[in-house]
Amino acid sequence: MSNLGTEMHELCSEMFPICRSITGNGFRQSLAMLSEHIPNLKAVEVPTGTKCFDWEVPKEWNIKDAYIITPSGKKICEFKNSNLHVLGYSTPVNNVVTLDELQDHLYSLPEQPNAIPYITSYYKERWGFCISQQERDLLEPGEYHVFIDSELKNGSLTYGELIIPGSSDKEIFLSSYLCHPSMANNELSGPVVTTFIAKWLSQLENRKYTYRIAIIPETIGSITYLSQHYKEMKKKVIAGFNITCIGDDRAYSYLPSRKGNTLSDRVALHVLKQSQPEYITYSYLERGSDERQYCSPGIDLPVCSVMRTKYGCYPEYHTSLDDLNLVTPAGLFGGFEVLKKSIECIEHNEVLRPTVLCEPQLGKRGLYPTISTKDTSAQVEDMMNFLAYADGMLSNLDIAEIIGVPLWELKDTIEKLKTEGVLEIVDI
Amino acid sequence: MSNLGTEMHELCSEMFPICRSITGNGFRQSLAMLSEHIPNLKAVEVPTGTKCFDWEVPKEWNIKDAYIITPSGKKICEFKNSNLHVLGYSTPVNNVVTLDELQDHLYSLPEQPNAIPYITSYYKERWGFCISQQERDLLEPGEYHVFIDSELKNGSLTYGELIIPGSSDKEIFLSSYLCHPSMANNELSGPVVTTFIAKWLSQLENRKYTYRIAIIPETIGSITYLSQHYKEMKKKVIAGFNITCIGDDRAYSYLPSRKGNTLSDRVALHVLKQSQPEYITYSYLERGSDERQYCSPGIDLPVCSVMRTKYGCYPEYHTSLDDLNLVTPAGLFGGFEVLKKSIECIEHNEVLRPTVLCEPQLGKRGLYPTISTKDTSAQVEDMMNFLAYADGMLSNLDIAEIIGVPLWELKDTIEKLKTEGVLEIVDI
Amino acid sequence: MSNLGTEMHELCSEMFPICRSITGNGFRQSLAMLSEHIPNLKAVEVPTGTKCFDWEVPKEWNIKDAYIITPSGKKICEFKNSNLHVLGYSTPVNNVVTLDELQDHLYSLPEQPNAIPYITSYYKERWGFCISQQERDLLEPGEYHVFIDSELKNGSLTYGELIIPGSSDKEIFLSSYLCHPSMANNELSGPVVTTFIAKWLSQLENRKYTYRIAIIPETIGSITYLSQHYKEMKKKVIAGFNITCIGDDRAYSYLPSRKGNTLSDRVALHVLKQSQPEYITYSYLERGSDERQYCSPGIDLPVCSVMRTKYGCYPEYHTSLDDLNLVTPAGLFGGFEVLKKSIECIEHNEVLRPTVLCEPQLGKRGLYPTISTKDTSAQVEDMMNFLAYADGMLSNLDIAEIIGVPLWELKDTIEKLKTEGVLEIVDI
Repeated sequence: MSNLGTEMHELCSEMFPICRSITGNGFRQSLAMLSEHIPNLKAVEVPTGTKCFDWEVPKEWNIKDAYIITPSGKKICEFKNSNLHVLGYSTPVNNVVTLDELQDHLYSLPEQPNAIPYITSYYKERWGFCISQQERDLLEPGEYHVFIDSELKNGSLTYGELIIPGSSDKEIFLSSYLCHPSMANNELSGPVVTTFIAKWLSQLENRKYTYRIAIIPETIGSITYLSQHYKEMKKKVIAGFNITCIGDDRAYSYLPSRKGNTLSDRVALHVLKQSQPEYITYSYLERGSDERQYCSPGIDLPVCSVMRTKYGCYPEYHTSLDDLNLVTPAGLFGGFEVLKKSIECIEHNEVLRPTVLCEPQLGKRGLYPTISTKDTSAQVEDMMNFLAYADGMLSNLDIAEIIGVPLWELKDTIEKLKTEGVLEIVDI
Repeated sequence: MSNLGTEMHELCSEMFPICRSITGNGFRQSLAMLSEHIPNLKAVEVPTGTKCFDWEVPKEWNIKDAYIITPSGKKICEFKNSNLHVLGYSTPVNNVVTLDELQDHLYSLPEQPNAIPYITSYYKERWGFCISQQERDLLEPGEYHVFIDSELKNGSLTYGELIIPGSSDKEIFLSSYLCHPSMANNELSGPVVTTFIAKWLSQLENRKYTYRIAIIPETIGSITYLSQHYKEMKKKVIAGFNITCIGDDRAYSYLPSRKGNTLSDRVALHVLKQSQPEYITYSYLERGSDERQYCSPGIDLPVCSVMRTKYGCYPEYHTSLDDLNLVTPAGLFGGFEVLKKSIECIEHNEVLRPTVLCEPQLGKRGLYPTISTKDTSAQVEDMMNFLAYADGMLSNLDIAEIIGVPLWELKDTIEKLKTEGVLEIVDI
Repeated sequence: MSNLGTEMHELCSEMFPICRSITGNGFRQSLAMLSEHIPNLKAVEVPTGTKCFDWEVPKEWNIKDAYIITPSGKKICEFKNSNLHVLGYSTPVNNVVTLDELQDHLYSLPEQPNAIPYITSYYKERWGFCISQQERDLLEPGEYHVFIDSELKNGSLTYGELIIPGSSDKEIFLSSYLCHPSMANNELSGPVVTTFIAKWLSQLENRKYTYRIAIIPETIGSITYLSQHYKEMKKKVIAGFNITCIGDDRAYSYLPSRKGNTLSDRVALHVLKQSQPEYITYSYLERGSDERQYCSPGIDLPVCSVMRTKYGCYPEYHTSLDDLNLVTPAGLFGGFEVLKKSIECIEHNEVLRPTVLCEPQLGKRGLYPTISTKDTSAQVEDMMNFLAYADGMLSNLDIAEIIGVPLWELKDTIEKLKTEGVLEIVDI
């Protein structure tokens, strides 16, 4: 597998143990680790209580330790072993309870007895532990010492933002979220692949478009980010991708924007159809991530999702089984490639028109064989087909779709035709 | 079966024996029987000779008695036994004819030997009898006394009209016809179900729309009615249904308007798809009732047909076999329900828009569970899906179609979201 | 088979031996033979070097004789036996070469060992011979005398043009090409059928439209013709057909215009669907004739192709096997008929609207039976269906498509309705 895949998997591994949530030091620490790859990534703090449309920034949550001591003195549900053991946003507790009382605060999955589930309670104050069903079934009656050393206090919500300028101030928007604790496909794959895409973009010699990259907590983070930027984004963003669940090596998946036919959607479908034809298409009714905000009525940004195996569609989802074996270097690299190709398609998507009427005389320009035989070269066919549709109205992407050839395979032909002065760009 | 079904079937039974035609006392008497259920139903008389577009109101036809006396003195084809025995609009006759002469005036159905066919001759003066093939085959040579005590004279065409006002002067139009003699599905089911729909509408506390209900003779009646009202109707009518063949308990059927995508069509399809998914769709090329006038070029009203088994598509159609066994209380009730649901969908079809950007915080309004788990509630899903599409452009019906949920199941959710101030109505 | 088919096949036979190319006396002589059937066909000469958009008219090519003498003194590849033996536009040669040297100038088809291929080199000067693989395989080492008595010199390109005036100056454009030597389906069928269509059109008493007919060399000819006429044609041409490969009796084929939904496309599909339902539809990506120019961006004429077996889709294509046995009288007649029907459909394609609202009273005009029975006549049904859609917006062709009846079967009904004053023409 490529070096890139391995590097991305290593970054996932480094970040895996940190206890992230929608606010707090775990998020900040994780963001700092991404900054090592993209130094211009800016951390923005938004204070608790800030109004964001219908919401407000919640209290900041931090946690140092947590565990349960059983009647026989055994330490279980240790935060230090797996931060999934603690209900996300748990209030602090230090108490002795009976097994019956404890049961009301335990979460487990009977159908997946060896998995610790991932559960949170952001908007109602509770304390709780997540535990495998196997372990829960062994708990004997008696008194349990429950201990959670957490803190809920006024503080701030943190997000990361990186603007990579291009020739145009029109923007391509990339968003990923960083609020999940120790899980790998959902979600470390998202921010890690996004970071490596940002790195690749930063190193390009030319960029037609400006890139706006947001690393946020899910839902409250996208709402907060939009509340600060949506007016500007509605003017500038021509395409965007919500990047999540992009690191396993099972499926490729596509979830449309609400409108379903934006530039992002058309590009994502072109790339998947041409490079991963076995991809799965979901409906917007199966959405479940930040596209819920980006595509909401009145916001209406052209954001779709390109994924490997979609959240909610693999058995390990939101449990301790979503780990660094599920996410692989090959899986991350495949996701990276599809996103990179999508961005390249947007960069190369122009509207071209002919400079002469009728088919140009390609022979005199060395673009066409001078002897006609029964055989037709596929390359000449693609060139003639491209010319047949380059009418000043269809975009290169439209034409690639019509003639059934990946846009990246047409790139050289298009360049040649522009260089020879047979086609020219239409300003739109 | 419901009381309503039984009540409707009883009304059909009472009206069954009356000899109706496109004009005359049978029509008036039948209309009076409907008025007992909807007292504001107004009878309008239009004199013979009145110009109605390309047509004119024909002479009024009334009949007291009719029969044939065979050579052996037997009385057959007695009007008093079945008014179908007389060719509709038959001229009077009192004569003695040979069997050969008689044969030219007899109508029967060789393929349905025990059925008396229903035949009319509105626009050419003729006399004739309808008879079962079985009976016809037994006629012996000799002299027959033919007697029809009918009268064709200047008079009037009668129709019934009922306007039930609503908050808006925009109208929903319901039309049914009452010109067929003793047959039950085509047609007593139509005017009877229409009458009970009108009764239900009259008793509603609130109506958004005004209801225009016409009980007419088929074809000449709809032409006459339109010639008097089409300008007003073209301004006001937003949806309409032609109500016929709605009393048997075999199929559910839909026949589109000429345009095929009016509000009526979309509502009818939504209701049938969601409540009677095995329904049959016909083409407008298979039309055959008053939609021929309502949807004609230049009239172009949004009228489609929701039926049980369509005219022409059941063997008993237009014969004496279309009787009160074919039409059942359950059949009538099913037709009533589909129409009622269609009307309710139109009454609840608004265009809503959000009052806040991004998803609203439903938790603080008690609309959303505060703890997120792997399970998602179907009800919350419907609510979130509805909100995702309520963009001030799509109607509730559009959204119900997109998210695949019957509009009537969304009604409570929509009310809650409006009450909580999360959605507001867009005036269009 | 019809006389027409036989006459067309005879004309193909007379023209078959002539050595045609994109310029030269063979083209002129062939055009003169077509003029015997359509005397107003005008021959236009365009001098070598004339600029035509991105191209220029090439030198004129003529040839008197050609052959090879083998080491054993045998004369092979004799032009007089088959003009296909000479590479099209071959430069003159009179030389002695070794077998190895000769091989570089020979063209054959290993997969079709008994066929002489058809090869040209219009835009690079070369000499060469085409030979069957069987004959080539027998060539022994030694010295060969190669002789081609051809001439490439400044001269002109010739095309034929015929304008047949109609009541309107709106035009229907028919184009066929005449630049191929001894082959029958591709291409003598094209100009011969076009000539007989022109003859039929000239003899019509009334023509609504003006007909523009071009007989040209392929590609350079259509480019030349367009460079002289495209501004006028863009204003006037409402439909057009590229006529080629229309003489065998295997398939019927349709290749769309670039836009795919022009009047030509809709008519061609209507005629083929209704009269030759087993026809094959190709994609514009499979184009390969003068529609490449007619439909090119900025030209955008509404030109599609109706063919029998398409060029490139039969094994004999562009070889000596495409001969007068492949093309048959029945094949030519079938192609003629489909084109004739297409033209008739355009001539009869009007937009009609009713003169009265609601259905007209057809009975009083003798258009409708006065007694209604269970049976419906198909003819009355077509008439009622036509009336139901004649709304001043849909064309006769649109309506024929909607009601599923060939336009030519509706012609009499439409005439009757116009004569009775029930429908009137809308000026558009």
